[in-house]
Amino acid sequence: MSHNQLSANGHLQHFLSIEGLKRPLLTEIMDRAEQFSSISSQQVKKVPLLRGKTIVNLFFENSTRTRTTFELAAKRLSADVISLNINTSSASKGESLRDTLHNLEAMHCDMFVVRHSQSGAAEFIAQHVAPHVSVINAGDGCHAHPTQAMLDMFTIRRHKNHFPDLRVAIIGDILHSRVARSQIQALATLGVGEIRVIAPKTLLPSDCQTLGVHVYHDMEAGLKDVDVVITLRLQKERMAGALLPSAREYFQCYGLTEQKLSLAKPDAIVMHPGPINRGVEIASAVADGPQSVILEQVTHGIAVRMAIMSMALGSQAEHKEVLV
Amino acid sequence: MSHNQLSANGHLQHFLSIEGLKRPLLTEIMDRAEQFSSISSQQVKKVPLLRGKTIVNLFFENSTRTRTTFELAAKRLSADVISLNINTSSASKGESLRDTLHNLEAMHCDMFVVRHSQSGAAEFIAQHVAPHVSVINAGDGCHAHPTQAMLDMFTIRRHKNHFPDLRVAIIGDILHSRVARSQIQALATLGVGEIRVIAPKTLLPSDCQTLGVHVYHDMEAGLKDVDVVITLRLQKERMAGALLPSAREYFQCYGLTEQKLSLAKPDAIVMHPGPINRGVEIASAVADGPQSVILEQVTHGIAVRMAIMSMALGSQAEHKEVLV
Amino acid sequence: MSHNQLSANGHLQHFLSIEGLKRPLLTEIMDRAEQFSSISSQQVKKVPLLRGKTIVNLFFENSTRTRTTFELAAKRLSADVISLNINTSSASKGESLRDTLHNLEAMHCDMFVVRHSQSGAAEFIAQHVAPHVSVINAGDGCHAHPTQAMLDMFTIRRHKNHFPDLRVAIIGDILHSRVARSQIQALATLGVGEIRVIAPKTLLPSDCQTLGVHVYHDMEAGLKDVDVVITLRLQKERMAGALLPSAREYFQCYGLTEQKLSLAKPDAIVMHPGPINRGVEIASAVADGPQSVILEQVTHGIAVRMAIMSMALGSQAEHKEVLV
Repeated sequence: MSHNQLSANGHLQHFLSIEGLKRPLLTEIMDRAEQFSSISSQQVKKVPLLRGKTIVNLFFENSTRTRTTFELAAKRLSADVISLNINTSSASKGESLRDTLHNLEAMHCDMFVVRHSQSGAAEFIAQHVAPHVSVINAGDGCHAHPTQAMLDMFTIRRHKNHFPDLRVAIIGDILHSRVARSQIQALATLGVGEIRVIAPKTLLPSDCQTLGVHVYHDMEAGLKDVDVVITLRLQKERMAGALLPSAREYFQCYGLTEQKLSLAKPDAIVMHPGPINRGVEIASAVADGPQSVILEQVTHGIAVRMAIMSMALGSQAEHKEVLV
Repeated sequence: MSHNQLSANGHLQHFLSIEGLKRPLLTEIMDRAEQFSSISSQQVKKVPLLRGKTIVNLFFENSTRTRTTFELAAKRLSADVISLNINTSSASKGESLRDTLHNLEAMHCDMFVVRHSQSGAAEFIAQHVAPHVSVINAGDGCHAHPTQAMLDMFTIRRHKNHFPDLRVAIIGDILHSRVARSQIQALATLGVGEIRVIAPKTLLPSDCQTLGVHVYHDMEAGLKDVDVVITLRLQKERMAGALLPSAREYFQCYGLTEQKLSLAKPDAIVMHPGPINRGVEIASAVADGPQSVILEQVTHGIAVRMAIMSMALGSQAEHKEVLV
Repeated sequence: MSHNQLSANGHLQHFLSIEGLKRPLLTEIMDRAEQFSSISSQQVKKVPLLRGKTIVNLFFENSTRTRTTFELAAKRLSADVISLNINTSSASKGESLRDTLHNLEAMHCDMFVVRHSQSGAAEFIAQHVAPHVSVINAGDGCHAHPTQAMLDMFTIRRHKNHFPDLRVAIIGDILHSRVARSQIQALATLGVGEIRVIAPKTLLPSDCQTLGVHVYHDMEAGLKDVDVVITLRLQKERMAGALLPSAREYFQCYGLTEQKLSLAKPDAIVMHPGPINRGVEIASAVADGPQSVILEQVTHGIAVRMAIMSMALGSQAEHKEVLV
């Protein structure tokens, strides 16, 4: 049902959702990210791939961390970056969103990185931009956070060989998590053997069955023999409502401790999209422990976003010259 | 009465007002913008003309749109840009504006782009900066907005051949509009055949006669046979006072509809400095219609600002090498 | 007692405090700043020394002026700069400072420029960062402001030949001034002949004796025959407390006027870290007078920060190639 993210010649134009993307494309993103990954540890962490391109961070929802990773990725590709916090800008002058977008396009901006609290916002914007503009979804409501999912897949691939052999468990607030939704789609597309979700009934979406996941309400059963444990951030605002007891009770049932982690495979990796609530969804001993790859995820986030941005801006040709 | 904007050798040093500038200089700005215009549609939208120069956006009045166009223009000239929102900075530490300026000069900043709610602010600053610093007026009170006027002239020249043959009508709040004031001066300097203003009496300045314009209070008469129709933004705050009836009544009298536009020449172009109030000063059908060049204005705004910035920073010499 | 600022091979890794640094290192900083100083007056004020490096301004305390000088210094070294105002970012999502830092490190950021209202903050951060990250103290509480002290030393060296021959007087709120603390340490390390502080008893630290300075409560005696007069900014908030009478009374006793300055050597220079309170700690006639080097300090601030940043990022090797 998603807006077509591919251009007529089959290349990535927008990156809005994992839904509808085929396995070879996800693999291409990860392969290209692998190349960028080596750049990040060089003395000069910059490539001239997007020199002269203008990327606009359109953040309708504040997120320093995500904005920073996109800004760094863009700068390391040598693009010019403009960051607009839409709440405090032309919206206050009564200009419609569509007019704001058309103005930015008229300024020859090449890419909009969109973060919005409403599901579907990035797709709406992609439907209304000029053909030369790419839209990247940096998180829209409870809908999708596809660059996060891709950096997670990249991190898994770095540690585990073959997706079909894997058992992956996602723990926490599946219902409200755009991260979980995109992760499940990516894991399924990559052919992961078994996808499990572990959550209280109040934090599970009603369409769980159709997602092709196995549902667990119990950590002991759900973590048994998994290769990858993904913990989700618990939004504090959920605690205020009727959906959840206290943070302490949540931690007792669904917080990832060393003890519970011991039920997974001995070489299982632990992931989290950040920022973490220590002692709520994860114990510090696990977050900082030997199986945690949480900070690696942050590192890979730059390379994966560089890959997606450079693919969407169609720099296939130059890419080869620079990197090979 | 304006501060001398030209250096001893006749080159542009500051750009504060159209007043006092001669036709050849306005033409030179448009000619140079023409060159930059082709750059904006290239793959790499950047020239190294102002590499190593530091441009400071000094915005005492918030304007995301204008700040963004200046920032993009500066970055595409390869300058370094610092944006200071003066309300929230050293002003709060009780430092005088003059001290702030002297400090920025001491840091070897080369250009101040000034936006201020008080008329004369940019000129005041230009009078007090060191000789190596250029000041660009990005809008001061009700006084002037000369870069907007120049991008409007550039847009007109792109569509209409010969300024002396043209009839141009400006509609709306002439009294409070720094845009209108600068447009009228630019149109007059370029020798436009007939300049008309169309507005209710309450929104006309008392010195209309001395401006050399023909005054109309009626759209039907005023639009008759014009080549260019410029609509102005109606500041919502005017509606609160006694100057105006409701937005709906204003639209009925002075809003540009397809019907009223049909009185102009068939190939007349429609302009607006943005952001537009749809259904107040202009109907959506006109704003988005075939005669509208509103988004072109935004595009040309980058090229014209690149032209003015590079001329003011005296890069005539290098310019030739890079562009020819 | 300070955290070791030098790496194993004796190079500068962090720059947290003047305390513990040896004279040759301070001299090396000034020598290198001398080279950068000539760059700032060139047409192209940029060197590619830190190209591809990422520098993060971590400002927990707002300071447009200091942030701007670090940002300019970083950009003129061709580094990428990210500015984070920590109050309004992830802190609001409940992430701990340590997690924020680890995330920035994971994004391959190379340097943190830290400003914080609490003494010891920069040192705390330096103790917890990864080995590849450098920390620069841009002012922490009442503790230290070492880059300010170094630009002051550089300014003195530009005007006066031989530190041991000099008498330097620092006037004002020594007790709360991180600037004064760092200046005294730098002056002592460089072997200045006599360091005087002039202040009311309520604005002197109790450990004055151990600082190796001569204490004066009287301007007439304290200024007699000095070569350098350093005035400090009087924080307005001190006036509210019991420490001080009114600003007017303070000016009468400790404000630097032309008359009082005449007691110093005829070629004495007058310094101030800025922003100045005219008519409180210094008279306008002195601040703008022929002996004032206050704006020179601002200019040298860029060169000195470029020197420290490039030394801390270990670009000794490339440095030679570019500058020699």
